[in-house]
Amino acid sequence: MMRLAVIGAGRIGAVHAAAVAAHPAAQLVLVADPDVAAAARIAEPHGARWTGSVEEVFADPTIAAVIVGSPTRFHVEQIVAAVRAGKAVLVEKPVDLDLARVDECLATVGADAHRVMVGFNRRFDPGFAEVKRRVDTGEIGSLEQLTIISRDPQAAPAGYLVGSGGIFRDMTIHDFDMARFLLGDVVEVSAVGQNLDPEIAAIGDFDAAVVTLTGASGAVATIINSRHCATGYDQRLEAFGPLGSLEAGNHTATTVRFNGPGVSAAAGPYLDFFLERYAVAYRAELDHFLAAIGSGAAPSPTLVDGREALALAEAATVSARTGERVRLTPTTHVTTHASTREASS
Amino acid sequence: MMRLAVIGAGRIGAVHAAAVAAHPAAQLVLVADPDVAAAARIAEPHGARWTGSVEEVFADPTIAAVIVGSPTRFHVEQIVAAVRAGKAVLVEKPVDLDLARVDECLATVGADAHRVMVGFNRRFDPGFAEVKRRVDTGEIGSLEQLTIISRDPQAAPAGYLVGSGGIFRDMTIHDFDMARFLLGDVVEVSAVGQNLDPEIAAIGDFDAAVVTLTGASGAVATIINSRHCATGYDQRLEAFGPLGSLEAGNHTATTVRFNGPGVSAAAGPYLDFFLERYAVAYRAELDHFLAAIGSGAAPSPTLVDGREALALAEAATVSARTGERVRLTPTTHVTTHASTREASS
Amino acid sequence: MMRLAVIGAGRIGAVHAAAVAAHPAAQLVLVADPDVAAAARIAEPHGARWTGSVEEVFADPTIAAVIVGSPTRFHVEQIVAAVRAGKAVLVEKPVDLDLARVDECLATVGADAHRVMVGFNRRFDPGFAEVKRRVDTGEIGSLEQLTIISRDPQAAPAGYLVGSGGIFRDMTIHDFDMARFLLGDVVEVSAVGQNLDPEIAAIGDFDAAVVTLTGASGAVATIINSRHCATGYDQRLEAFGPLGSLEAGNHTATTVRFNGPGVSAAAGPYLDFFLERYAVAYRAELDHFLAAIGSGAAPSPTLVDGREALALAEAATVSARTGERVRLTPTTHVTTHASTREASS
Amino acid sequence: MMRLAVIGAGRIGAVHAAAVAAHPAAQLVLVADPDVAAAARIAEPHGARWTGSVEEVFADPTIAAVIVGSPTRFHVEQIVAAVRAGKAVLVEKPVDLDLARVDECLATVGADAHRVMVGFNRRFDPGFAEVKRRVDTGEIGSLEQLTIISRDPQAAPAGYLVGSGGIFRDMTIHDFDMARFLLGDVVEVSAVGQNLDPEIAAIGDFDAAVVTLTGASGAVATIINSRHCATGYDQRLEAFGPLGSLEAGNHTATTVRFNGPGVSAAAGPYLDFFLERYAVAYRAELDHFLAAIGSGAAPSPTLVDGREALALAEAATVSARTGERVRLTPTTHVTTHASTREASS
Repeated sequence: MMRLAVIGAGRIGAVHAAAVAAHPAAQLVLVADPDVAAAARIAEPHGARWTGSVEEVFADPTIAAVIVGSPTRFHVEQIVAAVRAGKAVLVEKPVDLDLARVDECLATVGADAHRVMVGFNRRFDPGFAEVKRRVDTGEIGSLEQLTIISRDPQAAPAGYLVGSGGIFRDMTIHDFDMARFLLGDVVEVSAVGQNLDPEIAAIGDFDAAVVTLTGASGAVATIINSRHCATGYDQRLEAFGPLGSLEAGNHTATTVRFNGPGVSAAAGPYLDFFLERYAVAYRAELDHFLAAIGSGAAPSPTLVDGREALALAEAATVSARTGERVRLTPTTHVTTHASTREASS
Repeated sequence: MMRLAVIGAGRIGAVHAAAVAAHPAAQLVLVADPDVAAAARIAEPHGARWTGSVEEVFADPTIAAVIVGSPTRFHVEQIVAAVRAGKAVLVEKPVDLDLARVDECLATVGADAHRVMVGFNRRFDPGFAEVKRRVDTGEIGSLEQLTIISRDPQAAPAGYLVGSGGIFRDMTIHDFDMARFLLGDVVEVSAVGQNLDPEIAAIGDFDAAVVTLTGASGAVATIINSRHCATGYDQRLEAFGPLGSLEAGNHTATTVRFNGPGVSAAAGPYLDFFLERYAVAYRAELDHFLAAIGSGAAPSPTLVDGREALALAEAATVSARTGERVRLTPTTHVTTHASTREASS
Repeated sequence: MMRLAVIGAGRIGAVHAAAVAAHPAAQLVLVADPDVAAAARIAEPHGARWTGSVEEVFADPTIAAVIVGSPTRFHVEQIVAAVRAGKAVLVEKPVDLDLARVDECLATVGADAHRVMVGFNRRFDPGFAEVKRRVDTGEIGSLEQLTIISRDPQAAPAGYLVGSGGIFRDMTIHDFDMARFLLGDVVEVSAVGQNLDPEIAAIGDFDAAVVTLTGASGAVATIINSRHCATGYDQRLEAFGPLGSLEAGNHTATTVRFNGPGVSAAAGPYLDFFLERYAVAYRAELDHFLAAIGSGAAPSPTLVDGREALALAEAATVSARTGERVRLTPTTHVTTHASTREASS
Repeated sequence: MMRLAVIGAGRIGAVHAAAVAAHPAAQLVLVADPDVAAAARIAEPHGARWTGSVEEVFADPTIAAVIVGSPTRFHVEQIVAAVRAGKAVLVEKPVDLDLARVDECLATVGADAHRVMVGFNRRFDPGFAEVKRRVDTGEIGSLEQLTIISRDPQAAPAGYLVGSGGIFRDMTIHDFDMARFLLGDVVEVSAVGQNLDPEIAAIGDFDAAVVTLTGASGAVATIINSRHCATGYDQRLEAFGPLGSLEAGNHTATTVRFNGPGVSAAAGPYLDFFLERYAVAYRAELDHFLAAIGSGAAPSPTLVDGREALALAEAATVSARTGERVRLTPTTHVTTHASTREASS
């Protein structure tokens, strides 16, 4: 039984705490949050301890691994502290909103980066993982075009969005990681932002966007985002190659279809929202983390994956604002020092 | 150019006349109906002649083939007259409502039966024809279960139904032929009639039914009928065997799907009604008839197929009324004399 | 926390034990099976006790409820013993293979029958439950036709089948319950059995069947069964009424579709087998049982539902063997005495 | 009966000639092509005349309308000659490969441009037309994102491609028109070309591309093109707005689905190629042209629509080559003089 702590008693912290508590190979030991009452609400039903002091997590030598679900600005310091205390880390995305800080973090943790996993949960979605597996087997030939449609059911409140780092760092970052997961390295980014929602425009952000990523292989990924979707959480992709294509579609609560006057085969709405849509993915993510840590292997996606997705988000932000494409220079990432790659127009 | 006449200037006669007129290998010469004005309305736009006397069709030696779309009670005498006049015949289903008269007809036309085709248009539906072809290639192994769902959009007026011979002779007869098309000979019939519509019950007919047919091979076909369907003309089947199954589904006007609040993937209604749903089938049926007649081959489905479907309709009528299964004794049909097969309980 | 015991350490016992152990409102206390080693294998990972003596379950006053997953022939005696010991019971289907024994059981437990739930798990499948809910709201009008397609991936070994009570008691019993769930009381049964598999024919059983059930309402349910299906566990139904229809379809592991040469939209196979297909249903079934027992309400489906499904299985067995329809006389079931309803032809 | 001539006896000329010949309101009078034998092959079966001299078409005062299906370089002069001869024109796309020549053509025909229709057949596809109609009714709210996936089954021979004007003028031009059809005016174009096929790269063209178009409304259209698709002719689009989305999908020959080991719901390949996929659209296009001309109304899409699609193709060509976005300055098109709009980076 691996002993784990969860830092952050918000919505995602609660998800992780419950997943750990239910996992046969893990034990939830401690939940830490400055809001002690929130920590208690999450810890108590699972028979775990709680604390208002994050330091308590790092000080406990019986805790092998930490799941970091705190606000983004605390991620880097908590990763570093956890790694220094000899613990494995599963950190929620994004690692940070500032690429330079992520590079510092990589430099600081050095070779210990292999014990840090970034929570790009969608890689563990059974559908997307199946597409990846089948693309890797060569079923469709070399990937040529990837189309990712990713729309939230509705925008978060402006109060949240204002500190979110913008649509590309907050929302598209998942799609950037998915594009890298399937396409590999990206050499060029072109982004078009849309201002259809005046409230979001007022805080200087986009509410929709289309991003085109050119891979080193010559393949192109297109990401289509919107902060709203009337049917629910719209999460699809299509991988296209010379031998065929693979599509992973939306999820509905059941397979029920209605036929009636003027309509046939009407299914229910898309699952709404990420906790429902990616419930299985969160469990599979934890499985992978526990299995890797337990066996001494490096879990994946890595801190470098977190860094790269953020670099794409920065490039897209620049592209959408300037109207110019951003070319990424090739980099060699090693886990002992930070990347020197820069986005340049 | 084969010269054809159409007998019967009702709805189905108009369909056939238009199909003949548009066919590159055929010429519509004459339309005959006691209602001369109706015949004229159909013939004139296609530059064909019209007549109130059916005899004129048989007397014209330049007419090679006749399409019989008159009321059912005239079918047998017109088949016989046409065949005696040396013409090929495409007759609408059912051949007659009375099995004995069909047997007399078979006895009368004798060896000339090979020039008579019965208009079971559904055999020419591209989807059903594809299922037949793929079953015949062995793609699903020996057919074991066949499920036919066949529902009209809405019941014909009681005035029509009262003379229709009942649901099994009027509506299910298409499904009986489809079952024979895929399953071969049937040895037992069990039918359950439903009386959900009091108006139809009042004229002694059923408005819905479930029929189970056991084939000589041991395969079983299930036919599910209703006189109404809110979504349109519901016409589906599934052929199931040890190696897989083939499903032919409903048709919609376009492939458009709607996603909105509470609903996803909503398609349009089923095509409504047979002229739309089976438009391609009617053209393919005519193609087959013209090609067979032109080359001296016997078109199919044959007069015996028409007889057999009617025998199943009679058996189903008995079964639904008595609550007993009806066993059909094996018969050998030859085209020179009528079948001696009888339905017995 | 409700304390539960599981009787029977076979495949289904293991499922129930795991579900109880994972349930936040329940505690797995004891697993009982004459095969003590099997009981231990299931109990130990969940920190529960195990025993070779079923009596130990009934003797433990701290155990509030018992899940009976033993071989069918022990169900009745264990239901009775558990009820007498004041415990609630969730018993796997079928209650027994012999209708008379079930009636005795009902007579014996009397008013305590309200504490016995029969494990017709499919009622808790989210898709089928949604169809039921929407039919009940009147969305399709009065149910007129119900079509259930239910095919196992492959036949159980002949050694199992020989003691299974035949296809109708062993396999179709789920579909009989589903038909009753949606259709209500059944007044007539007509069954056609198929002997396509000589090995199964040799033990006097059918390997496929089509059953038609006429409801008291005039609606008709059709059940299409096969002991094999190349694509997996084929579990579908369609409810049809005057205002529309609702279809609950098969489940695949993911939503991934493949398009390639000669093929489009190809999905994966159906989930195979019941543990995968009905995983969610088993959890929802347990939820319902615990919630009902916890609140003092009677869980459902009831012992009478178990009795009725078995009565339909008996009627179908008679019908398939004799070729005659079996009419069921209406009965009034109360929970204090057994039904007097008999199947008669 | 409107009397028509067809200029150009190639593949598309044959399609139009057959459509005219079969149309109840039209008569095919003359087919003109410098290759007289080719003209004869098309004209003769329909009982029409043929000629090697295009002048003969313009000289015949009984001919009311001309369908121009000649090689692209002859389009402009034939449009002008036909219009001067008082005839209506349906010209295949593109109007010309050179935007300046199209502007000259517009200037020359002046007010007579209302008698010229450009053959963007896809606007008449029932699915795409239905999406347009439903978007116009406001069913999904204001269009926000449009995704067009358009892939040919396989690349035309390099010999054809070398003179085609490049992928954007030859292939994407249809998608540019479709984007304008649904989105209205476009203000900015960003295109990424792909060089996955060395043979096509060798002639300086792209074999795949992703184009992003920003509409004056703030909506964004994404076009995803490839010169090959293993499954057939891949022709889909999705219109997305705040109230929902509408998807028009691919076409298969039948609705048949196969279920077997490891696969379910497998449909046939996409219809291949444009003559099959857009057969209904070609007929509807002709209907519209004949109805408009017959009633004195201006058919649509217009010569200006042809000009605008070409302007987008030019802008995309520049964007893909330079890596820069191309901004289109707003223009006011009137039918009496050519547009002054220019593409500028």
